[in-house]
Amino acid sequence: MPSISDIGEDALIESLTSPLAQPAHVLVGPGDDCAVVDLDPSSDQVQLLKTDCIIESVHYLPDTAPERIGWKAMARVVSDIAAMGGTPLHALVTIAASEDKTVAEIEGWYRGMNQLADTVGGLSIVGGETASLPQPGAIISIAMTGTVPRDHYVTRCGAQPGDLIAVTGPLGGSFHSERHLDFTPRLAEGQAIAPYATAMMDLSDGLAKDLPRLADRSGGLGYQIDLDAIPIHPDSDLAGAIGDGEDYELLVALPPTAADRAAALGTTIIGAFTEPGQRTPLDGGWEHFRGKTG
Amino acid sequence: MPSISDIGEDALIESLTSPLAQPAHVLVGPGDDCAVVDLDPSSDQVQLLKTDCIIESVHYLPDTAPERIGWKAMARVVSDIAAMGGTPLHALVTIAASEDKTVAEIEGWYRGMNQLADTVGGLSIVGGETASLPQPGAIISIAMTGTVPRDHYVTRCGAQPGDLIAVTGPLGGSFHSERHLDFTPRLAEGQAIAPYATAMMDLSDGLAKDLPRLADRSGGLGYQIDLDAIPIHPDSDLAGAIGDGEDYELLVALPPTAADRAAALGTTIIGAFTEPGQRTPLDGGWEHFRGKTG
Repeated sequence: MPSISDIGEDALIESLTSPLAQPAHVLVGPGDDCAVVDLDPSSDQVQLLKTDCIIESVHYLPDTAPERIGWKAMARVVSDIAAMGGTPLHALVTIAASEDKTVAEIEGWYRGMNQLADTVGGLSIVGGETASLPQPGAIISIAMTGTVPRDHYVTRCGAQPGDLIAVTGPLGGSFHSERHLDFTPRLAEGQAIAPYATAMMDLSDGLAKDLPRLADRSGGLGYQIDLDAIPIHPDSDLAGAIGDGEDYELLVALPPTAADRAAALGTTIIGAFTEPGQRTPLDGGWEHFRGKTG
Repeated sequence: MPSISDIGEDALIESLTSPLAQPAHVLVGPGDDCAVVDLDPSSDQVQLLKTDCIIESVHYLPDTAPERIGWKAMARVVSDIAAMGGTPLHALVTIAASEDKTVAEIEGWYRGMNQLADTVGGLSIVGGETASLPQPGAIISIAMTGTVPRDHYVTRCGAQPGDLIAVTGPLGGSFHSERHLDFTPRLAEGQAIAPYATAMMDLSDGLAKDLPRLADRSGGLGYQIDLDAIPIHPDSDLAGAIGDGEDYELLVALPPTAADRAAALGTTIIGAFTEPGQRTPLDGGWEHFRGKTG
C-alpha cells in the first residue's frame, strides 16, 4: 500500500479532491491558492476560502520565538489570498498542542497572529479552537476568508503562450536567513497586479517546484527562463533563488501587452511561457513530504 | 509557567480570544458554536464560520475505520452550524499525518467526509491541504462556512430566567457505543428550533459541562434540572446521560411561550433557567485537556 511519501503531496491532494463534484457557485475548487465561491450573483465581489497549517519541526523549530511562529502561520494564508488578488477578512485558528506547551507560548502565537493581522488591516480572528496533541509537538491550522472583485480574481490556470513570467521580489535563502518567519505577504502587489495578470500563485515551495505547477495548470505550457534575470536575494545565490522554498513572493503571468507595466507593478520579468514542449531545466525546490524522504 | 492542562481549554481560549478587537461586521466572535459575520447588510442572510479538528488517539482510535473518521470530522463541524440554526455550505480540509499513513487511509477519510456532505446536501469540500506530521499520528482540521437568516441565528447568550431547558434526543454512552463515529448532526432540528429558541449549543462535552457554559454565557443564570426528565440513551444510564460527552444533540433554551411547541420541535424539556444563583449539581462531563489529566 503506497504511503504519502511514495506519491507526493501534490499527487495525493489531486487524487483526493479531483473527484469532488462542485456546485455551480464554486467558481474555483481545490488545487489553486484559494477556492473562489459565489455567494451572491448580484454582488461585484466573490469570496476566497483558504486553509493552511504550520507544524513544529517542519515549518519552524521548537525554539523559534512564539510571536514569529504566529506571524508566519497567519502570513502564509494571507499570501495565498494575495496570490488571487484578494483582500483577507476573517480568520479561524485551530491549535493542537501537546500539554508541555505553556500558556505563555500559545499567547505568544496569538500575539504574532494579531501583529500580522494589524499590519494587514481589516483582518480579524473570529474563532479559535484548541485541542490536545498526544505526542510532543504543535500544529497551528488557520482558515481564512477573503473577498476579491468578481472580474479580477487570478488563478493558476490562465497563462498563455507568449505571456511574460515575472516575480515580485528577490528569491532564495528565506529559511536559512529566517526571513520565512517575518515576511510581509504581497497583498498590495497582488491587488495591483490582478487586473493585468493571466495567472498568479505565491512561491512557497520555490521557483523550481512552483513554476512547473503553474505551467501544468495552464494547459501544460512550456517556458523559457533567463537565469541571469532572476532577482537573487542577498541571503542567497542563484541555486537558492531557484531551488529554495518559503519566498512568498508572487509568481505572475503577464500578457505581452502588459510588459511596460511590469516594473510599475513591482515585478521583474524572468522569462516567458511557450507552447507546450520545452521547459528550462530547474533543479531543487522543496516539497514537504518528498523533501524529507527523497 | 502554567501549561494548557493547568488552566483548561475553556479558560485558555477565553484568555486568548477575548482581547481580540472585532470590527462591526463581526456579529458574534470567538466563544460561541460559530462566529457570525455580516458580509452584506442588504442581505437577509449572514455568514457562519467554524473550525474544528479531530486527533488520532483523542477523538478516535488508530484502528477506527477511515470512513468513520472522516464522517465524524465533518459531522462535528456541521453540528456547530446546526447549533446556530444555520445551513452548511463550504468546507476546507487540512490533514496533518505521519508518513506511515497510507494513501488508502486518507482516501477513506475523504470518502467519509463526502458521505456526510452528501447526506447533508448542498455542502462541498472546496479546498484541501496535506502536511507531514513528524510524530506518528494524524489530525484532521476542518473549517466550514454556512448561512443563516439574519433574524434567526441563535447564540449561547440569550437565555432568560424562566426559559425552558430542552434537548433534541437521548443522551449518554456515545463514545462507548461508537455512536460518536456515525451520528447525524441535528441540522433540520436546529433550523426548525432557531426561530423560537433564545439560546442553543450542541452537546459535545456532555450536559454537565455544556449546560453551565450556556448558563454562564447567558449572564450567569441558575438552572433547575429534573433528573427524571432527562432522556437516557439505551446505550447509557443516567450518570452517562449527564456526564458523557460526544452526544451532539442540541441543548436549547425555549421561552415559556414556546412550551407547547417543544414536542413538535423534537425536543424534550428537562428543566428551566432561573435567576443567577442555585444550579442543580451535575457531575462528570468531558473536557479534552482536563479529561486527560484531572
